[in-house]
Amino acid sequence: MKFSIERAALLKAVSQAQSVVERRNTIPILANVLMEAADAEVSFRATDLDIEVVDKTPAQVERAGATTVSAVILNEIVRKLPDGALVQLSEEPATGRLTVSAGRSHFSLATLPKEDFPVMASSEYASNFSCKAPALRRLFDKSKFAISTEETRYYLNGVYMHVADAEGGKVLRCVATDGHRLARVDADLPEGAETLPGVIVPRKTVGEMRKLLDDDEATIAVSVSETKVRFATPGITLTSKVIDGTFPDYTRVIPTGNTRKLEVDAAEFASAVDRVATVSSERSRAVKLQLDEDRLVLSVNAPDSGAAEEELAVAYGDERLEIGFNAKYLLEIASQVDRENAVFLFNSSGDPTLMREGNDTSAVYVVMPMRV
Amino acid sequence: MKFSIERAALLKAVSQAQSVVERRNTIPILANVLMEAADAEVSFRATDLDIEVVDKTPAQVERAGATTVSAVILNEIVRKLPDGALVQLSEEPATGRLTVSAGRSHFSLATLPKEDFPVMASSEYASNFSCKAPALRRLFDKSKFAISTEETRYYLNGVYMHVADAEGGKVLRCVATDGHRLARVDADLPEGAETLPGVIVPRKTVGEMRKLLDDDEATIAVSVSETKVRFATPGITLTSKVIDGTFPDYTRVIPTGNTRKLEVDAAEFASAVDRVATVSSERSRAVKLQLDEDRLVLSVNAPDSGAAEEELAVAYGDERLEIGFNAKYLLEIASQVDRENAVFLFNSSGDPTLMREGNDTSAVYVVMPMRV
Repeated sequence: MKFSIERAALLKAVSQAQSVVERRNTIPILANVLMEAADAEVSFRATDLDIEVVDKTPAQVERAGATTVSAVILNEIVRKLPDGALVQLSEEPATGRLTVSAGRSHFSLATLPKEDFPVMASSEYASNFSCKAPALRRLFDKSKFAISTEETRYYLNGVYMHVADAEGGKVLRCVATDGHRLARVDADLPEGAETLPGVIVPRKTVGEMRKLLDDDEATIAVSVSETKVRFATPGITLTSKVIDGTFPDYTRVIPTGNTRKLEVDAAEFASAVDRVATVSSERSRAVKLQLDEDRLVLSVNAPDSGAAEEELAVAYGDERLEIGFNAKYLLEIASQVDRENAVFLFNSSGDPTLMREGNDTSAVYVVMPMRV
Repeated sequence: MKFSIERAALLKAVSQAQSVVERRNTIPILANVLMEAADAEVSFRATDLDIEVVDKTPAQVERAGATTVSAVILNEIVRKLPDGALVQLSEEPATGRLTVSAGRSHFSLATLPKEDFPVMASSEYASNFSCKAPALRRLFDKSKFAISTEETRYYLNGVYMHVADAEGGKVLRCVATDGHRLARVDADLPEGAETLPGVIVPRKTVGEMRKLLDDDEATIAVSVSETKVRFATPGITLTSKVIDGTFPDYTRVIPTGNTRKLEVDAAEFASAVDRVATVSSERSRAVKLQLDEDRLVLSVNAPDSGAAEEELAVAYGDERLEIGFNAKYLLEIASQVDRENAVFLFNSSGDPTLMREGNDTSAVYVVMPMRV
């Protein structure tokens, strides 16, 4: 194998690869990236056995072939090469080493045989559809904060992507929850997605996939089976196992009868919550909301450190209400609001509260109250 | 006590205070900042019993008095207040609480009695002199990287500031070393510094003091006794105990007979060292330098991960030399060079090597070689 490639293109491929590679793993070859050069293209493949990423990049291939080297070391080397450098990679059959050269820098890296590299089995996908990058980005960006980190509730450790019935018809929906808060985000159902089986996309996959979505003009090809999900741009294909579990029936958690409506500037609300939470105890982070005619008082009372109170002018026309929340959860849902006011719908101080952006029901958030 | 103060001025004073406060300490009052309001000025005082910082800031004092509150919480509150806010601080004698108000935000913080706050005893200083901020900054910035972190060699856990004889006469000198490398930086001797007793300024003090030196126009009043050092601007006074120990005789470590001279672009050298070190083992980080007529080859050979080599065009006219160093140490001294080429002076592969910037002997660095 021997090929030349511009540093920037190589860095893009190798940094995506090293990000999928797990830092601590007991199987040496999983630390490596598999490079396969043929025709005028090199593919870079990395896996942690659950996720596989393949980046295909044009290169000047002088001698076809394949080998594997440490993804982390190769990434470090390429990162440190000067911008604009032309990098030559060449496997020396005699020594079994990979030579990386650029200008007056020469590296000789240990390799492992390409035959040992675990390539993910191909699948039949039940559903194939295309989705614009911004739509997919919104679905996952607005839901991922609610993913649970509790390993025992493994079926909550991802985003549940599925087809659902909304007011205007069928939608592509992402839901995440950790039992304390829930995010439900809808997008127009892409053509071909009608047969999509509901799948739980793991947290790490959400993070890796997110890197494919930065280009507003990109169209992402999505393929889903009962066990796998695949996101592909023309250059990069990310395949991931999905979480083998049943996502709980979240619809029962979303309140439908909440009528007490608060409308508040999301940024002002978030700043005020953040300020009063300063004095709250590390553990509970409890903030109390007192609602009265067009008036919201946020307060914290921590016997050890002190008390805090802040008043906000809001739109509220229902009867007086006192309700407590974890400040972190309030801040997280308020930061999802990007265009309009945050609208909160309360029932009683013991019931889950709903939040959405203005009158837009395509993204709703539920947060459980806490006793204060 | 009751006073009003602009947010920015309050933040500056309180952030300096909370930075001196130790995060974990068993004496509650040491977590607090002592505020004393009198006339048209408030002083903010914080200490960890080794360092004391006092910031005096003009304020509208309505009622003189003094109290102490958590420096970390007050800092967090002020940081989160909107820019430009006028903050009112008022001690409520009835409750023993401090009320902090700005706009519609109100905080009530637990206080501890001002009488319990340990104020550092005043000292007689043997030497008092003034020094421009840039000169003091250079002395400490160029030496602090070499401070030892080994607690058993406590007398190396700081920068040794003293008066020394240099080629052109007496100088104000800072020296730091950890046994593997050494930095020696000289500045013109300020008037009044002739009687300066040599003192070891602790690492934390160096860091805190550095914050007073950002203004190029500032003049710093320095006072030194056998046990304490004080750095003062018109607004802020930082007093610190010095390390009670004897700094070793560093002059014996600085080679004087090294004649093999290498001149190299410091930035190019640093990039090349950084690149070849990528394949070195985590532990040793060893890089080999091979010197020949106007040619430097940097190389690393790590049996596990691979090998690396890079050639640099340099100025070198002495006989062939091979010598090894810790890559981290080479990078750190190379990054001290800011104007000219780095000049290395070698003896043999087993002897300490000297580095300086061009022909400037006012900052020299010594680094011990390692076997490669």
